[in-house]
Amino acid sequence: MEQDFLARAREGVKKAMSKRDALLTHVVGSIDDGNKAANLLLERLTEWYWVYFPEVRISEPDKFCKAVEILDRENVDVAALSEIVGEKKANEIAERAKRSMGAEVAPEDVEMMKTFARKLNELYDLRIEMEAYMEKLGQEICPNLSYLVSPKLAARLVAKAGSLHRLATMPASTVQVLGAEKALFKHLKKKTKPPKHGLIFQHPAISMAPKNKRGKIARAIAGKIAIAVKADAYTGRFIAPKLKEDLDRRLKEIG
Amino acid sequence: MEQDFLARAREGVKKAMSKRDALLTHVVGSIDDGNKAANLLLERLTEWYWVYFPEVRISEPDKFCKAVEILDRENVDVAALSEIVGEKKANEIAERAKRSMGAEVAPEDVEMMKTFARKLNELYDLRIEMEAYMEKLGQEICPNLSYLVSPKLAARLVAKAGSLHRLATMPASTVQVLGAEKALFKHLKKKTKPPKHGLIFQHPAISMAPKNKRGKIARAIAGKIAIAVKADAYTGRFIAPKLKEDLDRRLKEIG
Repeated sequence: MEQDFLARAREGVKKAMSKRDALLTHVVGSIDDGNKAANLLLERLTEWYWVYFPEVRISEPDKFCKAVEILDRENVDVAALSEIVGEKKANEIAERAKRSMGAEVAPEDVEMMKTFARKLNELYDLRIEMEAYMEKLGQEICPNLSYLVSPKLAARLVAKAGSLHRLATMPASTVQVLGAEKALFKHLKKKTKPPKHGLIFQHPAISMAPKNKRGKIARAIAGKIAIAVKADAYTGRFIAPKLKEDLDRRLKEIG
Repeated sequence: MEQDFLARAREGVKKAMSKRDALLTHVVGSIDDGNKAANLLLERLTEWYWVYFPEVRISEPDKFCKAVEILDRENVDVAALSEIVGEKKANEIAERAKRSMGAEVAPEDVEMMKTFARKLNELYDLRIEMEAYMEKLGQEICPNLSYLVSPKLAARLVAKAGSLHRLATMPASTVQVLGAEKALFKHLKKKTKPPKHGLIFQHPAISMAPKNKRGKIARAIAGKIAIAVKADAYTGRFIAPKLKEDLDRRLKEIG
């Protein structure tokens, strides 16, 4: 009897945890922390590598890492480097390598830098893989929202709210400033202007609009999001095309 | 003529940069930042994985990652798991898996977690590789200091000072508190007790001594370090065995 009671209780907890949307929060968080980690390591690698070869200045992180992996100061492989940074830049680096101001180091020193760069590069690849997974997961968990505002933004909204159901219970005005909590509390405490948009600023209709129209656009989008996410959480019906049509019409009116 | 002047100037800068000890600072920094990054990602992975399989509790980070890589909740491979965490723990996890409280997720969800764990594991492997390299580099750059206090501590001291020569110019009293700057400035500003040791606390003769003797021991070690590093920076003669003998005698007197 008690056994039975425990089993049922366990089943209840399991059901509560069975919401796959809980994964979204962690995936989004993992991507963000992966970025933080990669930035930290890139800064280190750059300073470290410049002891040896300070003439290599490549602003894109992944290209810098790939270049470090294949570069050899005494013998620059221009063809291979060109594939990463283009011919012009490759020739420039090859030219400068001849009069490099870098220190004399041992081959194993350069090897260690290359290994470090390779690992960092793999972190960049991982990010790409995780973003694709996040978008797929977003699409499966909230197809309406994903259709309306892109799977990427949908995933971030659910992650920020904590769960699909929590997002579904939020009024449009809360959705509108979700992710702008800092500005919101500053507004409440210090009477600064209230934020016009939080995460949804990533929507191109807002970020590419002139400043004085962003508030109106944000309100329109947040309203449709609130409807789409309710459909995802409760009915499961796919109503997004109609919503998007309405939204597009409204955006034209505003803009 | 001007060409010649520039070439000489460049040679001068290059010579100044040619000190291979500059690498040590960056290697030590890379190891530390690699640790920070790995800790950040481990925390994420743990929370993420527990959505699926909260019964996996393994406190060693690398073992946890290895377990995640091979585990399958529906079909725990006890033999493989035993190799990572031991038979007892493996059986325990297999037993609990049967009544797991984790969420129902899709196979691709678990795959993504495994990929993330694999990358994290590679970061742990990288750390081991980099530490071995750091010790080797320390031994080559400062053989006396490495012999006296271990290559690891030697590398950290040089990295903290900024260069071998800067460490060589420091008096023993500065070496003694190197790495305890926070406590030192607090002492100077707020009249708290001065620190007895900085980085050299890692030396087992200090960290394993009773508290009331640590100051004396730290002073003795710092004195010998100051001599050893001068030999490394200026004469290049290998005098460490004699220094170590003297130090061991002094430590016996104290302890």
